[in-house]
Amino acid sequence: MTKNPLHDFFQTKSIAIFGASASKGKPGYVIAENFIKNFKGKTFLINPKGGEILGQPVYQSIQEVAEPVDSAVIIVPAKYTPSAVADCAKKGIKFVTIISGGFKEIGEEGIRLQKEIDEIAKANNMRIIGPNCIGLFYPKRGLDMIFLPDEKLKRPGVGGVSILSQSGAFGSAFLDIMGSLGNGNYLSKFVSYGNASDINEADILEYFGEDPETKIILAYLEGFKEGRRFIEIARKVSLKKPIIAIKANRNEAGAHAVASHTASLAANDAVTDALFREAGIIRAYTWDELFDCMNAFNSSFLPEGRCVLIITDGGGAGVMASDAVGELGLELAELSPHIHEKMRADLPPIISVANPIDLTGSATAKEYLYALEQTIDDPNVDSITYIIIPTPPAINVYDLMEGLKPYAKTIKKTITFCAIGGKEAAYIREELEKMNFPFYPTPARSVYAIDKLTEYADYLRAHGMALPKLREVPKE
Amino acid sequence: MTKNPLHDFFQTKSIAIFGASASKGKPGYVIAENFIKNFKGKTFLINPKGGEILGQPVYQSIQEVAEPVDSAVIIVPAKYTPSAVADCAKKGIKFVTIISGGFKEIGEEGIRLQKEIDEIAKANNMRIIGPNCIGLFYPKRGLDMIFLPDEKLKRPGVGGVSILSQSGAFGSAFLDIMGSLGNGNYLSKFVSYGNASDINEADILEYFGEDPETKIILAYLEGFKEGRRFIEIARKVSLKKPIIAIKANRNEAGAHAVASHTASLAANDAVTDALFREAGIIRAYTWDELFDCMNAFNSSFLPEGRCVLIITDGGGAGVMASDAVGELGLELAELSPHIHEKMRADLPPIISVANPIDLTGSATAKEYLYALEQTIDDPNVDSITYIIIPTPPAINVYDLMEGLKPYAKTIKKTITFCAIGGKEAAYIREELEKMNFPFYPTPARSVYAIDKLTEYADYLRAHGMALPKLREVPKE
Repeated sequence: MTKNPLHDFFQTKSIAIFGASASKGKPGYVIAENFIKNFKGKTFLINPKGGEILGQPVYQSIQEVAEPVDSAVIIVPAKYTPSAVADCAKKGIKFVTIISGGFKEIGEEGIRLQKEIDEIAKANNMRIIGPNCIGLFYPKRGLDMIFLPDEKLKRPGVGGVSILSQSGAFGSAFLDIMGSLGNGNYLSKFVSYGNASDINEADILEYFGEDPETKIILAYLEGFKEGRRFIEIARKVSLKKPIIAIKANRNEAGAHAVASHTASLAANDAVTDALFREAGIIRAYTWDELFDCMNAFNSSFLPEGRCVLIITDGGGAGVMASDAVGELGLELAELSPHIHEKMRADLPPIISVANPIDLTGSATAKEYLYALEQTIDDPNVDSITYIIIPTPPAINVYDLMEGLKPYAKTIKKTITFCAIGGKEAAYIREELEKMNFPFYPTPARSVYAIDKLTEYADYLRAHGMALPKLREVPKE
Repeated sequence: MTKNPLHDFFQTKSIAIFGASASKGKPGYVIAENFIKNFKGKTFLINPKGGEILGQPVYQSIQEVAEPVDSAVIIVPAKYTPSAVADCAKKGIKFVTIISGGFKEIGEEGIRLQKEIDEIAKANNMRIIGPNCIGLFYPKRGLDMIFLPDEKLKRPGVGGVSILSQSGAFGSAFLDIMGSLGNGNYLSKFVSYGNASDINEADILEYFGEDPETKIILAYLEGFKEGRRFIEIARKVSLKKPIIAIKANRNEAGAHAVASHTASLAANDAVTDALFREAGIIRAYTWDELFDCMNAFNSSFLPEGRCVLIITDGGGAGVMASDAVGELGLELAELSPHIHEKMRADLPPIISVANPIDLTGSATAKEYLYALEQTIDDPNVDSITYIIIPTPPAINVYDLMEGLKPYAKTIKKTITFCAIGGKEAAYIREELEKMNFPFYPTPARSVYAIDKLTEYADYLRAHGMALPKLREVPKE
């Protein structure tokens, strides 16, 4: 098996930045700064103007660099890009990411330029990511080609999620959200591949599939360069780790929009659906769904079966969660008789210990914790959704969060959390995210997350696979 | 036509609080405090212990009150409730809200107590809200029976939305969210009606329908006491103002949950769907949908037709929004030729002025504002969804929000907003909410909102009605 080229892109030891700029705020400055400050490797800044940036010398051409260079990132205007690529070729650089736009996506002149680049690359055995993309981000090694400063885009910290995104804006907004979440530690590797003149969605999926640091794969796709190969790779990868994908550009209106974006062809959406299902890809249709899946697969366990227990203090929330259980074809768990009886005896008669367990408007933090403690090991319960309405007078949400902390380390069961309301719900969300628990703002979404975990677990079981461990204990 | 009893509940001039308590934090204390501090009318505190609360005397019985009293709220334990209701009857109080739980929802003994109350009320021409509810809230008159202090539940300010909720927890969480939103000014009147021993969902809907302060009606229902009457009333009311309703308890699992909650019967859900559609009720299925509709109907205009324009700087966001337009059966607007040509001439060639208008990663605040200014009066455009990805380097979100402010007063077209990301998206949301613009966290939800506005506008047109004005100019 030949080594996947993405390996060299991510593990590059030395990188040249074509178009490094001394003007603060410009993409060439932001990327130069990213590398100078954080990159665990050597950085060479290239700009015909020379000078220095943040105390590092700027070479007027790559030929001035005395040592060999692995890799390059190009941020110069489109018309200068072919000559930059040719310079890379002369220097023996094999791995080039082209951030610059102005190629195939703008029409005739751009198509010509992109073709020129392709020919240089091919003749010199070079591999290209882009053009028209935001490139790579790999926080563990400080490899960060994103041309947006930290104030504009908060970077996520190191975690197990790897993302491939055809759209740079989608990708950057998703990274920004990840970076702003509770503990912020989510990302392994990120690739925005834009026009995919060479490296495409199938190459990246294959690499993420082999990458031991990648636990979950997220994809945003508008079309396929190699649809058949993508599905074949997905079939193998999905048996090892979950792939969650948005395939946008789903209908005539979407195709109309994509024409001026990445110009990908719309496949028949029902075919995409069937292919994804058969290949074990979990399909998200909306941003919310992708985000909800990311949360679930990043911080949960896969359930052993389809029986869901609902614990709440809000009768209405319990009904809405139950509606979702029914709607999605999951089942309401029946507590084991001895557990049911014990709870019946221990709790005030006003509390319903059926399913949903409704702790009612008189719920206390202690009762919430008790309900979890009693049911967490019940083999009749495959997953729990824990829905907190913080408004009732007796719940102390600080005590409740304190009491949940030990579970962050010991829990072995699939669980999703939900809290609804204003300020106290926001506090609960923040605390649960610190514990690396999957949080949802509504009952329906917390059940949806369980459904997707269950769908994937069912797929693995149907293929004779053991369930991989997804959730990791959060660092102190 | 006899006057709807809700009128007297909301316009009560004097109220007695049975179970007023001097213990801080207890429901009887919180409600007493609410009334003493805010009620624009007379408050009489009742508790056999006597004493005083916040400087107001506590009467040992209602008979000690020398003047007549319109209305009462009862917070005493269930077993003492019938005698409190009997005391009200003796005093000539006709309008009683019973917060206390422990009635029909807990079984035999509770059913007996509830029946006892019903008989007293009937014999004395009294009207009852509850029991087992959180009662009424009417910020304009400081009428606030919610037994949760402000730290637990942030009250929304005065606006045009009225809510009826069978579930107290659902209602309180929704109020808490409303109170925490940007400008917080949303609520006209709120009724949680719990077991609905007397006043039910149909009575409340009828009242909200006639109430000139109510511009939009939201309902959370698990079942119907008078389903047929509810639908008949809705048919008339929906021609005057939008009714948006969640009907939970939709399937077997939901019915299982409701058995221990409000014990309502599940109707066939497809029948509910058909009845709602025919009566012009906009049905929301999830919390997100109800919230999204509330936002749209509270702060938008109704569109003249089905043609949607998408303005964005994110190609991927544009594709996802277009997918949603296609999926929901809306249409992508085609700009009028002269507007299209003008924009084509004024903007850099990289910007697509088709639909979506894709301002690309080089978008500036000025270009965003220009795109709105050019298209806002285009008769080919019925509604606009304005999607901001704030991560690109050139957008100054502060300038953009400043530039949108004048539109808050002058706009006449249906518009929804979306911003995706972390900190800057949160800032955008806050600013847009202050301008009373409907904000959504994802492209799909911002298009969903337009779809629901369009659905209602179509319904009104089909019934020969003019479109009512929904959006109000925000106060400074």
